[in-house]
Amino acid sequence: MAVRGPLLKDELDIVIPTIRDLAFLEQWRPYLSPYHLIIVQDGDPTKKIHVPEGYDYELYNRNDINRILGPKASCISFKDSACRCFGFMMSKKKYIFTIDDDCWVAKDPSGHEINALEQHITNLLSPSTPFFFNTLYDPYRAGADFVRGYPFSMREGVATAISHGLWLNVPDYDAPTQLVKPSEKNTRFVDAVMTIPKGTLFPMCGMNLAFDREMIGAAMYFGLMGDGQPIGRYDDMWAGWCCKVICDHLGFGVKTGLPYIHHSKASNPFVNLKKEYKGIFWQEEIIPFFQQVVLPKEAVTVEQCYIELAKQVGEKLNGLDPYFTKLSEAMVTWIEAWTELSGTAKK
Amino acid sequence: MAVRGPLLKDELDIVIPTIRDLAFLEQWRPYLSPYHLIIVQDGDPTKKIHVPEGYDYELYNRNDINRILGPKASCISFKDSACRCFGFMMSKKKYIFTIDDDCWVAKDPSGHEINALEQHITNLLSPSTPFFFNTLYDPYRAGADFVRGYPFSMREGVATAISHGLWLNVPDYDAPTQLVKPSEKNTRFVDAVMTIPKGTLFPMCGMNLAFDREMIGAAMYFGLMGDGQPIGRYDDMWAGWCCKVICDHLGFGVKTGLPYIHHSKASNPFVNLKKEYKGIFWQEEIIPFFQQVVLPKEAVTVEQCYIELAKQVGEKLNGLDPYFTKLSEAMVTWIEAWTELSGTAKK
Repeated sequence: MAVRGPLLKDELDIVIPTIRDLAFLEQWRPYLSPYHLIIVQDGDPTKKIHVPEGYDYELYNRNDINRILGPKASCISFKDSACRCFGFMMSKKKYIFTIDDDCWVAKDPSGHEINALEQHITNLLSPSTPFFFNTLYDPYRAGADFVRGYPFSMREGVATAISHGLWLNVPDYDAPTQLVKPSEKNTRFVDAVMTIPKGTLFPMCGMNLAFDREMIGAAMYFGLMGDGQPIGRYDDMWAGWCCKVICDHLGFGVKTGLPYIHHSKASNPFVNLKKEYKGIFWQEEIIPFFQQVVLPKEAVTVEQCYIELAKQVGEKLNGLDPYFTKLSEAMVTWIEAWTELSGTAKK
Repeated sequence: MAVRGPLLKDELDIVIPTIRDLAFLEQWRPYLSPYHLIIVQDGDPTKKIHVPEGYDYELYNRNDINRILGPKASCISFKDSACRCFGFMMSKKKYIFTIDDDCWVAKDPSGHEINALEQHITNLLSPSTPFFFNTLYDPYRAGADFVRGYPFSMREGVATAISHGLWLNVPDYDAPTQLVKPSEKNTRFVDAVMTIPKGTLFPMCGMNLAFDREMIGAAMYFGLMGDGQPIGRYDDMWAGWCCKVICDHLGFGVKTGLPYIHHSKASNPFVNLKKEYKGIFWQEEIIPFFQQVVLPKEAVTVEQCYIELAKQVGEKLNGLDPYFTKLSEAMVTWIEAWTELSGTAKK
């Protein structure tokens, strides 16, 4: 249960899809500059991104993705922040923190800047408790513990694969909710981290997310979104559903709660609605699919689980839309590329 | 999703096991005195409890319980706060709030007194979301909603049966944790209410608890504890495990989080250890039993579910200790008494 100090540069990479606002990197400098950045440019490859001095980074545009992956580049989305998963593949580090460029450093209720990365690391380095609910939230935090009635055999917990952070100011709402509540802001700072129980799905947002790449990276595929695809804004959701069922199958933990970032502006709800509308009704069948999916005992690595999941997506969701056949194939392509490039694949 | 204002006196009763400190009723006066109290005295019936002026109450001691229940009184614990469930049976109201006499009015971070009862009522009158996790906590609170990716078909939620409140100051730890951390205090005010997902068990504490008696009261049996029994301090846990599997089966919601009370003093850890030690190892088999229990489709009322659960307890836990055969029988007796007296039983 001992929690280590901050990670070293050779343990964690920061992956960011296209940075449009360089003030973003200036504000995050004290927190992010000690680490290596991997920037994946989602749009026009001829546009140049200027990264301020003092940052150590590598940058990939569409031409780089095509060159590195060849025909397998088809599995990486174009003109969509879903392309960020290419950065997960190129990293060679154990941990990844990924953040959007409209997320700023948030302040806690006492007015202090929140070091989001440090909290993510704390979350990832302390165990999760997916098999039984602890009413006082994360039992491994200072000043907390397991409450009366919590089985002792479960108090060691399991290793944490994913740390899902939240957002103050503009909440991560879908287009219909944005349209109905255009000015709702999240001002409630909930001082908690918790494990999402085994068997429970959640909406994983990619804006402020960290994970153990060696444990779960192979399932952190953001699907086919954006240019040439019938949907958008479901990239992180798709990754979240896949990751959660695989974490449940393999006995890994998923935490949510702290840290908060300050999400500056809501994206255009009309544009979002156009991207989302198929997802909004498709998810009514996708969620039951993921709630019922069973992975075979023989699937003992993330790669094996993911290939099995791809197969079931192709078989059971293809009736919904031909898109899911294409997605199923892209999931297999992703694993092939991951196995070649990531350096984490276990046979 | 509309939330009503405070409940009327004819909708809610407050059930308190033995009041040892009358200052308790003085401090809670603004919040509790508008309601009717049911006090269940756990010890010596000749001892007199003085209730201050201005409170409307009824008081039951062991002689009353024996007189009212006759031979069925055997299902009500003696010399243990588990006797409080007799009060649940005697109430004729829709809602119950039960609280221990060492729980005081807590203050929120801005120094304002917390009206725990009002928050419990808010929790019980707004839906729960047991089928999918909402990362921004209770979506029905002001300023919150369902996040992107939450299926629209699940946004109506289900009716809430139980509201489980928490404790500032002395946390509800078991004896071993009390012994190891004698002075740990809970100072973290987590401003959240959440639904405990379907299929997930939790340690339900009876110190600060409210529930819909018509929905789940028949399962709110606190078991056989205290005088003449081999264990104590598992009364609320037992009720919690039974209630949760029945809520999951019937599609009712269970919320935890706010409101906080201020828990003034830890009970003696050595005395607690003596009461708990069998429970500590029994629960290692009891939890898997409750995690795997399946109730038949034909069980459509809480009473039917509870009788079925009693049967399975008798069959599957009797190998652990003869106590579970006795407990199984007491569970049936409880339902017989509940059916006669409570006025809520559905046939």
